[in-house]
Amino acid sequence: MTVFELDNDAIIVDAGIMFPANDMFGVDYIIPDWRYLTERKDLKIHGILFTHGHEDHVGATEHLVQSFPGVPIYATPLTAGLIGVKLKDAHLEKLSKINVFHAGDTIKVGPFSVESYHVCHSIPDCVGFGINTPYGLIVHSGDYKFDNTPVDGKKPDYAKLAEFSKRGVLLLMADSTNADQSGWTRSESVIDDAFDQVFRNAKGRIMVATFASLISRIHQVGKAAERYGRKIAVAGHSMSENIKMARELGILKIPDNMFLDLSRINQIPENQVVILVTGAQGEPSAVLGRLATGRHRQLDVRENDTIVLSSHTIPGNEESVNRTINRLFQKGADVIYDPIAAVHVSGHARQEEMRLLINLTNPKYFMPVHGEIRHLKAHARLAAQSGIPQERTFIVENGFVIEGDKNGMRIGQRVPGGYVFVDGSGVGDIGPSVIRDRETLARDGFIMVVLNVDSKSGELVKNPEIVSKGFVYLRDTNELMDTVKQAVHDGLSNSSNGNRRTKIEESLGRMLYNETRRRPMIFTVINEQ
Amino acid sequence: MTVFELDNDAIIVDAGIMFPANDMFGVDYIIPDWRYLTERKDLKIHGILFTHGHEDHVGATEHLVQSFPGVPIYATPLTAGLIGVKLKDAHLEKLSKINVFHAGDTIKVGPFSVESYHVCHSIPDCVGFGINTPYGLIVHSGDYKFDNTPVDGKKPDYAKLAEFSKRGVLLLMADSTNADQSGWTRSESVIDDAFDQVFRNAKGRIMVATFASLISRIHQVGKAAERYGRKIAVAGHSMSENIKMARELGILKIPDNMFLDLSRINQIPENQVVILVTGAQGEPSAVLGRLATGRHRQLDVRENDTIVLSSHTIPGNEESVNRTINRLFQKGADVIYDPIAAVHVSGHARQEEMRLLINLTNPKYFMPVHGEIRHLKAHARLAAQSGIPQERTFIVENGFVIEGDKNGMRIGQRVPGGYVFVDGSGVGDIGPSVIRDRETLARDGFIMVVLNVDSKSGELVKNPEIVSKGFVYLRDTNELMDTVKQAVHDGLSNSSNGNRRTKIEESLGRMLYNETRRRPMIFTVINEQ
Repeated sequence: MTVFELDNDAIIVDAGIMFPANDMFGVDYIIPDWRYLTERKDLKIHGILFTHGHEDHVGATEHLVQSFPGVPIYATPLTAGLIGVKLKDAHLEKLSKINVFHAGDTIKVGPFSVESYHVCHSIPDCVGFGINTPYGLIVHSGDYKFDNTPVDGKKPDYAKLAEFSKRGVLLLMADSTNADQSGWTRSESVIDDAFDQVFRNAKGRIMVATFASLISRIHQVGKAAERYGRKIAVAGHSMSENIKMARELGILKIPDNMFLDLSRINQIPENQVVILVTGAQGEPSAVLGRLATGRHRQLDVRENDTIVLSSHTIPGNEESVNRTINRLFQKGADVIYDPIAAVHVSGHARQEEMRLLINLTNPKYFMPVHGEIRHLKAHARLAAQSGIPQERTFIVENGFVIEGDKNGMRIGQRVPGGYVFVDGSGVGDIGPSVIRDRETLARDGFIMVVLNVDSKSGELVKNPEIVSKGFVYLRDTNELMDTVKQAVHDGLSNSSNGNRRTKIEESLGRMLYNETRRRPMIFTVINEQ
Repeated sequence: MTVFELDNDAIIVDAGIMFPANDMFGVDYIIPDWRYLTERKDLKIHGILFTHGHEDHVGATEHLVQSFPGVPIYATPLTAGLIGVKLKDAHLEKLSKINVFHAGDTIKVGPFSVESYHVCHSIPDCVGFGINTPYGLIVHSGDYKFDNTPVDGKKPDYAKLAEFSKRGVLLLMADSTNADQSGWTRSESVIDDAFDQVFRNAKGRIMVATFASLISRIHQVGKAAERYGRKIAVAGHSMSENIKMARELGILKIPDNMFLDLSRINQIPENQVVILVTGAQGEPSAVLGRLATGRHRQLDVRENDTIVLSSHTIPGNEESVNRTINRLFQKGADVIYDPIAAVHVSGHARQEEMRLLINLTNPKYFMPVHGEIRHLKAHARLAAQSGIPQERTFIVENGFVIEGDKNGMRIGQRVPGGYVFVDGSGVGDIGPSVIRDRETLARDGFIMVVLNVDSKSGELVKNPEIVSKGFVYLRDTNELMDTVKQAVHDGLSNSSNGNRRTKIEESLGRMLYNETRRRPMIFTVINEQ
C-alpha cells in the first residue's frame, strides 16, 4: 500500500495482505497499519487505485473500505472483478463504487492525473502508473516482468515507458522481488511446453494445483486440455468463483463445452479429464491438502494420477508444501513440481529486466519497493550501476515519508507503518505480547496448580489439583507429579500470607527446570478458606 | 541410522538427528526410535560405524551409547574427533571405545567384513561402505558427491566402486537428497573463486558464517585469508572446539600465526581480519543471530562489514535465515548469500552423479535412502532408467525391514521406526497429543475461569476470576470480559451439580467463537463451598 499526497489531497495505490511468518502464532494474515490516514482528518482521499488482482495487492480492500467508506476504487476489468467478488462475499459492496479503467487510460482522481500502462505479470490486466505531480512524473512499476512472449499476446508497453522517459521521470518506484536473481525471468509461455510434456505422458487423470487468482495459468491449463482432448473440472470455491467471473468478463476464453462438473468426472475415462485445484501452498484445508490426507468429499488420489504443482512456494510454506508432495507420492500419484519440470515461472522481473526498466525510464530519483530489505539493497545496487547515485536512492521501511518539492526529493519523517494482525474476526487486537505468550505456550505448554489453603494456618486443606497442557503427560510420570507436589509444599512452607503465590510459582519453576530443562507457564490459584 | 543383521549379529551404520519441523512445537531435535533393538535381547550388536561427522549422521550418538553401553564405535579420524568432543561434553566418553580407521581400511566387526572407501562430501574424511554378506555385497554410499576437484585433493574412489562392480553388487543403498535436481553438483572448489571475489572487494572486516562442522569450508576460508593477508578469529564455542580438534589431527592445516583471539581483533586494521561465526541457519542464539539483533558481548556489526553466509538453508529455516540477512543489512553490513554469489555448493550428488554411481556399481537391487519420499521416488526413476526394474527397487519408510537370502531380496515386516522427540532433558516423553495441545495453545491461547460456587444453591459466591494468556488482552477489552461473565452465568444457570463444568465450558466456547472466531483452550475450576 502506497499513499501519494499533494497538499491536502491523496490517493492510495494497492492495499494488500501479507502472510504471517511461522512464528506469528495464530495470525491469519497481516494488513498495513493505516492509522496515519485515519488520524489525518485534513486529508481528502480521492480514490484507491489498484495495479492488479493478487492478494498481496488487493487482499486488504475489505478492511480499507470499512475505514474509508465512500472512497471510490479504480481498477482494470479483471482486478475490479476480483475485488468485486471479495467485497460481495464480505457484504461490503455498498461501501465503495468500483470504477473500471483499461490499461492505457489516464485517470483523473482529485488533483492527480494518473496514466496507466500495461505491464506483464502472472495475472492478466496488470498495470503500472505514471503519476503526474507539479514537481515531475512518478512512475510506479506495479508487479512486472518484461515478458516478450506473454500467453495473452499483450506485450509490455515499452512505448509508454519510453515516452515517460522523454518527458522526464522524477522518481521510479520499482518491484524488487527478484533483485537478488541474475538474468531474465523466463516467459510464461515456457510453461506451455512443460504442460505439453505432462499432458502427453499422463496415463490417468491430471490435477493442476495453482493460486485461485492465477488466471493466466488457468488459461494455459485450458489450452493444454483443448490440445489433448481433456475436459476441465474445478475443485475449490474461490477458484470456481474467479473462473466464472473471468469468463463473464471475456478474459478467460474457454468454451462452455470444455468444462465438466466435478461430480461428473467419473462418467468419462480418466485420461480425458484435468482437474484444477486450490492448495498449492500446502494449506491443509484447501483441496490439495485434503486430497493428500484423504479428507476430500468428492475427490481421491489414485495410482495413475498426475498432480502438477504450478505455483511458487511462498517463503515459510516450504515445509507444508513438501509434506503435501510426499503424501501425494505415498498415495501413489506422480507429482510434478518445480525442479522436476518448468511448470512454474516467476511473475517478477530479474536483474536484467530491472536494469532495462531503470535505463528505459532514466529516473532522477529511485525507490526500490516490494521486497525485503535484502531485495531493496540489491535493487539499489543495480540502480547505482546504471548511474543513480546513493543519495538519490531511497531504501526505506514501511512508514517512511518521501518528500518532494521544487528543490528535489528526500526522506522525511516516519509515521506508523507497521503490521496489523488479523486473527479470526479480530483486527489488531493481538499484539507482540500475546504472540510472545503463544510462543511460550507453544514451546513448553503450561501447568496450573489449584490450592485450597486454610486462611489462618496457611496449610493445605486438601491435596493440590494439578492441570497441565502441552508440557508432559503428568499422568504417565508419577515421579514428576510427586516432585510437583513437593515443590508446592516447599513454596508454601517458605511463604507468608502476602507472597504465597509468588513463592509457590518460584519453587515450582525452579524444580521443573531442574528436572526437565523446560519452562512451562505456571499459574497458581489459591482458595483461602 | 541403518541396522545390518546376520542371524543374531548386527552392526549399526550412523546415528543422526533430524531437525524438527516448525509445527513440532518445542521439540529441540529428533532421534530415531530404536526400540526394536533394545527389545531384541537375542541380538548382539558388534559396533556402530560412522560414514562422516555431520549432525544428521552422528548427532544421536550420545543417546545411542546410553542405550547400548560398551558397544564400540568405528570412525575415520575427523569423525572420531567430532564424536569424541560430543561424548566428552556429555560426560559419556567412558560408555564406548572409539576405534579409528582410515578410508580404504577393511574393518572386521563381529561376523561382518566392512570395506570402507573414500567419498567426497562437504566435510573431510567421509566414507561409504561395502558390507560383505554370505548372499552378496551391500554398498552403502554414505553422503556423497563426485567432486573431481575436491579442495583437499582427495578424489572419489572410483577404483573401489569399479572393483565392487566387478565382484558383483547385490544391493546399492544410495543418498537421495538431490534426486530432483538435474545435472551435476558443482565442485567445492568453485567456492574458492567466490571467496576470492569477496576478499578482493571487502573494504572492512569479513565475517563468514557456516556450520561448525563444515571443516572443509573453514579450510577454504583459511586459504583465502592467507591469500589476502587477513588473520582469522573464531566466534562460537562449537566451531572453536571443532577447529582445535581438526588442527590437532592435522586435517585442518592452518598455521598458528594465522589465528587471532576474538578479543584482539580491534588491535589490527579492519581489512586484515576475517571472523568465522556460527549461526548460518538463523538460530537466534548463535553468533550471527546475536549479531543481527545486537546481543553479542564481544562483536558488533559495522557499516563496512562484509558478511558471508556460506551454507545451505535447511528446509524450514528459510524465514529465520532471511530475517537474519535483513537485519544485518539494516545494520549497514553488506551481506553475501547464495543467489548473490556461489558462496555455497551442495555436498550431495545430483541426478547425473546418481546415474554414474548406479552404472558404476551395477547393483542387482537398489534402495534409495537419505531423503524424503519425493526424493526416493525420483531416485528410483533414475535407477529404472538405468535398467533396475521396479520390483528390485525398495522405496520404504523408516522401520521397514529389507530381507535377503539365497533366493534374493524383498521387503519384510515393519518394526517401530518413527521419531523420538527430544525436548529439554526429556527423551521421548512428549508425543503427538502434547504437540497437538501446544499447537492449539499457539493458535489461540487459553482462558481459565475460577468459580466459587455455593454447593447447595449452585450460585456464585463471588465474581468469577478470569485468567487468559495468548488469547486477547482481556484487560483492554472490557466488553468481551462482560460477555465472558455472561456466558459463565448462562452455563451455570443451565447446569446441575453433575455437569456444571461441562455446561460452563460449552457456553463459554460457543460465545468466544461467535465473538472472536477463535477457539482458545478453556479451563474451569469450580470450588464448591
